[in-house]
Amino acid sequence: MLKVNPNLDKIEISVIRKIAEACREYEGGEKELINLTIGEPDLPQPKEVIDGTIEYMQEGKLGYPQLGGMIELREEIAKFYREKYKVDVKSDEIIITVGSTEGLSTAIRTVILPGDEVIAPLPVYPGYEPLINLAGANLVKVDTSKDNFELTVETLKKYVTSKTKAIILNYPSNPSGVVISKENRDEILEFVKENHIYIISDEVYSELVFDVNHNTFLDDRYRENVILVNGFSKSHSLTGWRVGYIIAHKKLRDYLVKVHQYAVTSPSIISQRGALIAARKCQDISEQVGIYKQRAQLVYRKLKEANISAIEPKGAIYIFISLDGITELGSLEFAQKLLEEERVAVVPGVAFGMDNYIRISLVKDKEILNEAIDRFIDFISKNE
Amino acid sequence: MLKVNPNLDKIEISVIRKIAEACREYEGGEKELINLTIGEPDLPQPKEVIDGTIEYMQEGKLGYPQLGGMIELREEIAKFYREKYKVDVKSDEIIITVGSTEGLSTAIRTVILPGDEVIAPLPVYPGYEPLINLAGANLVKVDTSKDNFELTVETLKKYVTSKTKAIILNYPSNPSGVVISKENRDEILEFVKENHIYIISDEVYSELVFDVNHNTFLDDRYRENVILVNGFSKSHSLTGWRVGYIIAHKKLRDYLVKVHQYAVTSPSIISQRGALIAARKCQDISEQVGIYKQRAQLVYRKLKEANISAIEPKGAIYIFISLDGITELGSLEFAQKLLEEERVAVVPGVAFGMDNYIRISLVKDKEILNEAIDRFIDFISKNE
Repeated sequence: MLKVNPNLDKIEISVIRKIAEACREYEGGEKELINLTIGEPDLPQPKEVIDGTIEYMQEGKLGYPQLGGMIELREEIAKFYREKYKVDVKSDEIIITVGSTEGLSTAIRTVILPGDEVIAPLPVYPGYEPLINLAGANLVKVDTSKDNFELTVETLKKYVTSKTKAIILNYPSNPSGVVISKENRDEILEFVKENHIYIISDEVYSELVFDVNHNTFLDDRYRENVILVNGFSKSHSLTGWRVGYIIAHKKLRDYLVKVHQYAVTSPSIISQRGALIAARKCQDISEQVGIYKQRAQLVYRKLKEANISAIEPKGAIYIFISLDGITELGSLEFAQKLLEEERVAVVPGVAFGMDNYIRISLVKDKEILNEAIDRFIDFISKNE
Repeated sequence: MLKVNPNLDKIEISVIRKIAEACREYEGGEKELINLTIGEPDLPQPKEVIDGTIEYMQEGKLGYPQLGGMIELREEIAKFYREKYKVDVKSDEIIITVGSTEGLSTAIRTVILPGDEVIAPLPVYPGYEPLINLAGANLVKVDTSKDNFELTVETLKKYVTSKTKAIILNYPSNPSGVVISKENRDEILEFVKENHIYIISDEVYSELVFDVNHNTFLDDRYRENVILVNGFSKSHSLTGWRVGYIIAHKKLRDYLVKVHQYAVTSPSIISQRGALIAARKCQDISEQVGIYKQRAQLVYRKLKEANISAIEPKGAIYIFISLDGITELGSLEFAQKLLEEERVAVVPGVAFGMDNYIRISLVKDKEILNEAIDRFIDFISKNE
């Protein structure tokens, strides 16, 4: 007997996770494995967060957190958005979630219905389509390569139908590192308002931008159209703690919190406390941003010198490298061969809907990234 | 613009949470508030768990946990089920979830489809219906009062239709404290196997039973039919840590883990470590069980002496008290009046689908419970 949701047959365990786990068999070999697959920051978790959380655990009663999340944390996030992004966010418009993943899941369960269409620009983070399929809806993937991987309202218009319920966006982008321009953002917001379409905006890399502004989709003029998802995993290296958040108009938040409550009750109170300390005491992450920027620049420059084409990252922690003119192989086969021969693990672009690319995570020291790119260039020249 | 899942209009924020939050306005008054609403154990969290977790946080890299949960924790749970319940559970049949809530949500999203019917005996824990409605399915609530609140196969047969996809069970029961007999359990298992129906068995109170055996629905002969949900919140007072688990046949687990991964990624690695310590070092909870048993007996005896009818709890941390012959009020109005006049907060039975009952949580010291019951008896005699 096996009678499960047939939508699940379309859904695979993430290719990224699979490749990361396949890496294990190459660990401890003669040539050291360089694993650049999972987007897990290598920079240390803030010591204040760990120490302060430990103190809280020694004193606190670690019982059920408040519904919708610790009020102090929600207030801190609201303040951050008011001050940095000049958006009038209130604490009762925020839900603390189990990482940004639960934020996305809760957002999609709340607004997406069977038969709906959701538009996303390519390359697309592989966590979205399974959630959209699970809701019985379809992801419409949109080529944006002619616009340097930014979604424009002109492109969008070509794909909107009467079934379009939402657009899911991820700027700064995983995997491309692209940041959307203010102009494109404004035009998209105006368009979705006129056409009663939601934007689910995954801005989990918002704080990791390199000498450019992050243009959040949260805007006082368009609040009813936007569900923002963010979290502490990438900005503060707190991946394992699983704390993210949703910001949405109060009316929408009242619905989102129902889904959230019955889906998880709440994130761990310990983790919420850690996030509170991060939000209060570790707002300045310029040093970390500087490190990712240096890595991005190093890798991009080296690739350019070797005549390998890549998208220059303006944010996030990845570099997306074109395989055009490099190989006839599909990206998965290419990545497997690179892993076998050079012990460099990368994510095939097919995971993001673009089979002519691979993604490298910038989550190792410069020296290691340098070595990885040397091996990569070597691999290409050997296989020419 | 507000275009949300219409199933959400059926769903309310939990009455239990609402009453618990309404309590705040009565705090600090002349007559001290006794809050017996939320099922949150008052017994201390094991010191070993807190200390060991702190040690881990000082040393460990708190990154993404393994997909499906920390392997050591899954192995510990599998061993526990093999040894205590003689069921052949393997670690790859377990998923570590964000509390038992996420376990239920993931189970329901995996097997329940729009139009399905799910049967549950009354009184029913209020967390199930919202998840079933969110899946577009219907909860069929079954009166079991003539069988001392145990579901029997005879009753079940009357409600099964061609649309019945699953039965959701919760023994030991919240709110009734009823434990199902081995005979009823066996007959139900045989019936669901023959009729290709799932049992989603919420056994989060499995370890809190008073001088009777817990009859788990996990059984080697019926593994394909049963999704077991359990957790550490009640047995080890670890509510705020948010760690639960699912046990299911490997074939089914492969589907469940997809839903789980895209819903939450994983529970906090810190909390998983705490649960591992609880599973390894704090298996003996006989002292805690003894305390809940004494409280249950005290309250039951006092009510009986006052000619108030209640269900004698055989497990869990509640007592379900009948209002028959006591009041003409509905349970919500009764609970509100009791709170206003006597500062005793209880959960109205209507939250569990039985308006002629109230639920008391046994999560205070005996002295306080004694005082609460005195006030309750007083309240009844004054309002006769």
